[in-house]
This record gives sequence, structure tokens and C-alpha cells, in this order.
Amino acid sequence: MQKITIIGLGLIGGSIGLALKRAKLKDIEVVGHDKDSRASAQAKKRGAVDKTEWNLISAVSNAGMVIIATPVMAIRVTMEHIGPKLSEGCIVTDTGSTKVNVLEWAKQYLPESVSFVGGHPMAGKEESGIEGADPDLFHDRTYCIIPDPRASSQAVQTIIGLVENLGAKAFFLDPVEHDSFVAGVSHLPLVLSAALVSATSKSPSWAEMRRLAASGYRDVTRLASGNPEMSGDICKTNKEGIVHWIDAIVNELQEYRRTISECGDDVEKTFIKAWEAREKWLRGEEPPPEGAAGFDEIPKGTESFTAMIVGERLAKRGRIIMEAQEKKAEGKPWEKPKKK
Amino acid sequence: MQKITIIGLGLIGGSIGLALKRAKLKDIEVVGHDKDSRASAQAKKRGAVDKTEWNLISAVSNAGMVIIATPVMAIRVTMEHIGPKLSEGCIVTDTGSTKVNVLEWAKQYLPESVSFVGGHPMAGKEESGIEGADPDLFHDRTYCIIPDPRASSQAVQTIIGLVENLGAKAFFLDPVEHDSFVAGVSHLPLVLSAALVSATSKSPSWAEMRRLAASGYRDVTRLASGNPEMSGDICKTNKEGIVHWIDAIVNELQEYRRTISECGDDVEKTFIKAWEAREKWLRGEEPPPEGAAGFDEIPKGTESFTAMIVGERLAKRGRIIMEAQEKKAEGKPWEKPKKK
Repeated sequence: MQKITIIGLGLIGGSIGLALKRAKLKDIEVVGHDKDSRASAQAKKRGAVDKTEWNLISAVSNAGMVIIATPVMAIRVTMEHIGPKLSEGCIVTDTGSTKVNVLEWAKQYLPESVSFVGGHPMAGKEESGIEGADPDLFHDRTYCIIPDPRASSQAVQTIIGLVENLGAKAFFLDPVEHDSFVAGVSHLPLVLSAALVSATSKSPSWAEMRRLAASGYRDVTRLASGNPEMSGDICKTNKEGIVHWIDAIVNELQEYRRTISECGDDVEKTFIKAWEAREKWLRGEEPPPEGAAGFDEIPKGTESFTAMIVGERLAKRGRIIMEAQEKKAEGKPWEKPKKK
Repeated sequence: MQKITIIGLGLIGGSIGLALKRAKLKDIEVVGHDKDSRASAQAKKRGAVDKTEWNLISAVSNAGMVIIATPVMAIRVTMEHIGPKLSEGCIVTDTGSTKVNVLEWAKQYLPESVSFVGGHPMAGKEESGIEGADPDLFHDRTYCIIPDPRASSQAVQTIIGLVENLGAKAFFLDPVEHDSFVAGVSHLPLVLSAALVSATSKSPSWAEMRRLAASGYRDVTRLASGNPEMSGDICKTNKEGIVHWIDAIVNELQEYRRTISECGDDVEKTFIKAWEAREKWLRGEEPPPEGAAGFDEIPKGTESFTAMIVGERLAKRGRIIMEAQEKKAEGKPWEKPKKK
């Protein structure tokens, strides 16, 4: 019997639990821990975990895999606490929205005998907490994998297996790349969404304006209803990236302002260009750049997740990743794995 | 047999047609016109209209009601063309996203023998065009009514009846108020949505970033997939309002930038405030300000829409609206109708 421990039973942790339980993996026990006992109780009731454990150290004791699904800042303190208590060979992953700091903490607080493979599922919904947990949350979504250079190939393979069991598509990234990319497509939208609520709701006319706010306002502001602690942690751990993108959007808005003020046909052209760009994105039309890591490079898990977690094979993909990681550890620049 | 003509058979015109046809109103014929013959054919095929009429003048000839559901700039030229050909007593309405210019055009191009009652349904969806038309599009949505001061009470009543038949909730506004309110809750979100696509899609890293763009990016950018002609027209006819709100959001973003750079607990507080404001909005918690027009003031249509369109009664609400409008016509400041 292998033990998988999920720390943090909110939307993401709860959804991982539900998806793992639904996969009916043999000889796997899913143990949950949350500092909020109501969340733990709810996770147990919804069948997201086999059992819950109030004591964090007991929760991770003898675990083959630990999934830290807390807001980003709590990952640090969690690693600090559990680090010395983890079994040798334990595979640790997280689901945090930023990765540079998380990889630093892993290096600092986790012993060399365990493997850390960072993760970030690109999935979310308006409802937060265990109440919103959904085993289909990750279906067909991109799941970023950011391995610590010290992680074993087997650990990387096991996390690929986890991602496949969640129905998601694994996508390998360097932590710096990860944080700069998500700053633009995930954290900037979050800031815009919250700033739109802040700006409109403090208007003296808000009491009437709000009645005219319809589905457009609802969609653009959806992210403002996310967990504020998570949003705050994202800003604290990806400050430079977010500030860079705030500056970029302010420049873009000044450009829109100029075009709108001038009131010519350029206004429509601007909207046509944005329409086209989004259409391409929706259709997935643009090919990835030369040498980019791609979904298609990741081998389909032919063996069960259970087999992976107990480490029966070292697959090609694992070796490719490790070669790249080893180069980095040797001080050579990190290169994205290429197709072989 | 009364004739209702819908000019412009896109998402809004088509959805109005479908809702009216579903209401199975007695002795009403719905005639559709669109400059795009494919849209006309599709509207007929989907049952949004009883028949289509290629010639605009023939389409409005002898109509008891004309609904102009084109992008805003096309309303002007439409009014100019049909104005001299409308039957006496005809009720004209529109569905345009801005109202100050539309009311001016109505004054300029429509004869005194017809009544103009501006309309703006606060409803939309990502899919545009007749293909996206849906009889439930307006269900429970706010439908702004902005009457021309010269409009008859009967005409206002009839438009209330129309709105009720669409399943929407009528909300009376002054055109200046309307345009300034929608600039904040509808046009600013549109500009933000498009500007986010513009800023991110021109990044050198876009080919990889786009793979990490998930449901958050999708929601915040949804409005960028709206009809670019409509978006351009909105900016052309509500320039001052939109520029005002771009400045407001840029200030707000600078405030967020400062808070994020300083990296203190204020970051989380900012997100908590935005979270609370949106939660209140979603729950509809804030009471309307003293004297504001409210949904509850509008009488339920006890008589059929058919009865309304042929003008059998002048209801209390009509009188209240008209008193306010007459004051305006006399040069007195416009006051929102109060409960009686």
C-alpha cells in the first residue's frame, strides 16, 4: 500500500483527491491534511481522500508522494516543517502559481533523499474551496511541470503519471520561464479583474451602474472572486513579472486611449487585430517555436500510476529531462528538452 | 395584423425575433431586414422572423413598430433612410450600446409623428451573429429604456411590453447617465479585454505563453471576440466616457503596482476589498440610492403586448415617465421618476 498525502484541501487539492479516487488506483491510500478542520471533514465526506490526518507530520509520515496544494506562501512553512520527517525517496510536488521561490524553498528545506518536482495546473474556477472541487477540473488542461534539478528521473516520471491520471497535459518549463509566462497570461488577468472591480465599485454612481453590469462585467471580473490570500501570495512571489506586465498593459491602454480619442478607423482596426489574435489562440493555430517543449513529446503512460510511484522503470522522457537538469546543475544554461 | 420590423438580424435582432415568435403574440407579423442576405436567410430558417424583406423601405412600410438592431453607427443612416417613410404613430426603438448620439439622431431624422424610445438590453455572449441568437438571451437581464422626450406615453408602455415579452427587466435612464454608466461597466471591460489580448499576443514569448493561458485568460478576454465593428462604433459614440474610465483604470493599476512593489500585507487587503465588492454585486446587496429608478416601479403588463402595441391604455408608469420627460422638454433638469 502506497500513501499519497495531499496538504491543503481547497479547490485544487480537493479536485486532485477526487480525480485520484475516481481513477481507482490499486494499493494507493490518499490521506488529506488541512489546517481548517471543516475543509478536512468536507473532503472526507465528498470522498476526495480515504482519510484525514490532523497532525501534519503524521500526515506525511511514510508517504511515497506528498502534494502541497496550499497558497504559495504556505508552501515554504510546510516544506520547513515536513522536510526532516519525509521518508527517503519520497516524491514531493506542489500546485503553486509561481515557481522560482518554490524551487528555492525546496532546495533549502527538503533533504537530498527526496525528489521535488514542482507542478502548476492551469485550471481554475470562480468557486473556491473544497465546495468547488471537481474531478474534471484538470481535464485537457495544461499542467506545468518544473522539476528541481536534483529530482530523480523516476520522480519526474511519477509526476507525469499523476498528471495523466488527472486527465491533464504535462508541459515542462524552467522556473524563470514559468513565472514570466504566467505573469502575462494568468497574474495580469487577475490584477486587471480585481482593479476593474476596485475602480468601478468606488464610483459615486456605483449603486446605479451596478444594475447595468451584465455578463461582460461578470466574466472580466470573475478572477476578482478568487481566494484573496492566494492572489496576495502570487503578487508577493512574482512581483517583478507582474509589475512588468502592469507596465505593458498601461502602455497598451494609453495606446487604446490615443486611438479612441482620435476617433478614426484605427479604432475598428485595433479591435479587429485583437479579435484575430484571440481567434488564433482559441483555435490553437500558432505552431510552437523551434525547440520548444511540447505536449507531444511526453510519452503516454503505458504503465499504471501505481507502477510509476513504486518506480519500475526509467523512461526515455525522464532521461531527457534529467540531462537538461544536470546541465543546469553543472552551471550550463538550462535548455528545453528537444525531441529525439 | 400589426407589423413589427427588425432591422439588423445579428445576435440581438435575431434573439428578439426568436423571443417574439416564441411568445406567439396574436395578430403580429415579424418582418426582418438585413443588408447581409445570408443573415436574412438564416433568420428566416431559424424562425426568428415570419418573413424577410430585402428592400429597407418596404420592410418598414406600414410597420407599427421598428426595432433597429444594427451596430450604433448604422442607426444614424438607417434613421435617415426610413424616417420619411414611417407610418404615423409608428414606434421606433433601437438596441444600440450608446444613447446620447442615438437620441440626437432620432430628433434629427425621425418625423414628429413617430415616437422614439431608445433601448439597450444588457445581454451578450461570445458568439456573435444570427448563429448565436437565443430566445433566452434577455431572460432576467436589465433592459435600459431611454425615451425621447417627444415619445408618447403609449409608445413607452409598448416598449415596456416588448421588454416583458423578452423576459427582461425594464430600467429607465437618462441618455447621459446611460452612456456614462455603461462606459464603466460595459465599455471599459471591453477595452480591457481587447487590450489584454493586444499586449500579450505581441509578446516575443507568446508562442509559449499561449499554452499556459487557461480559463482565467479566456474569461477576461471573452469580450475581445465581440463584433469589432460594434466595438469600434461604441468607442466612436462614447469617446469621453470611455477615455474617462481608461484614465480611472490606469490610476487604479498604478495603485496596484505600487502596492505590489511594496510587497506588504496591503496586497492581500486590496484583493479582499475587491473580492467583497464583487460578492456584494453578485448578491445584489446594495440598495439603490434614494430616488433612483428601480425595476420594482415598473407595472407588470396585465394586458397583452398586442393590446399595448395598438395602444388601448395609458398606464400610470407612462404618465410618470412623461411628466419627467416633459419637464426636460421645458428645459427643467431631468429627474428620475419617483415611486408614487
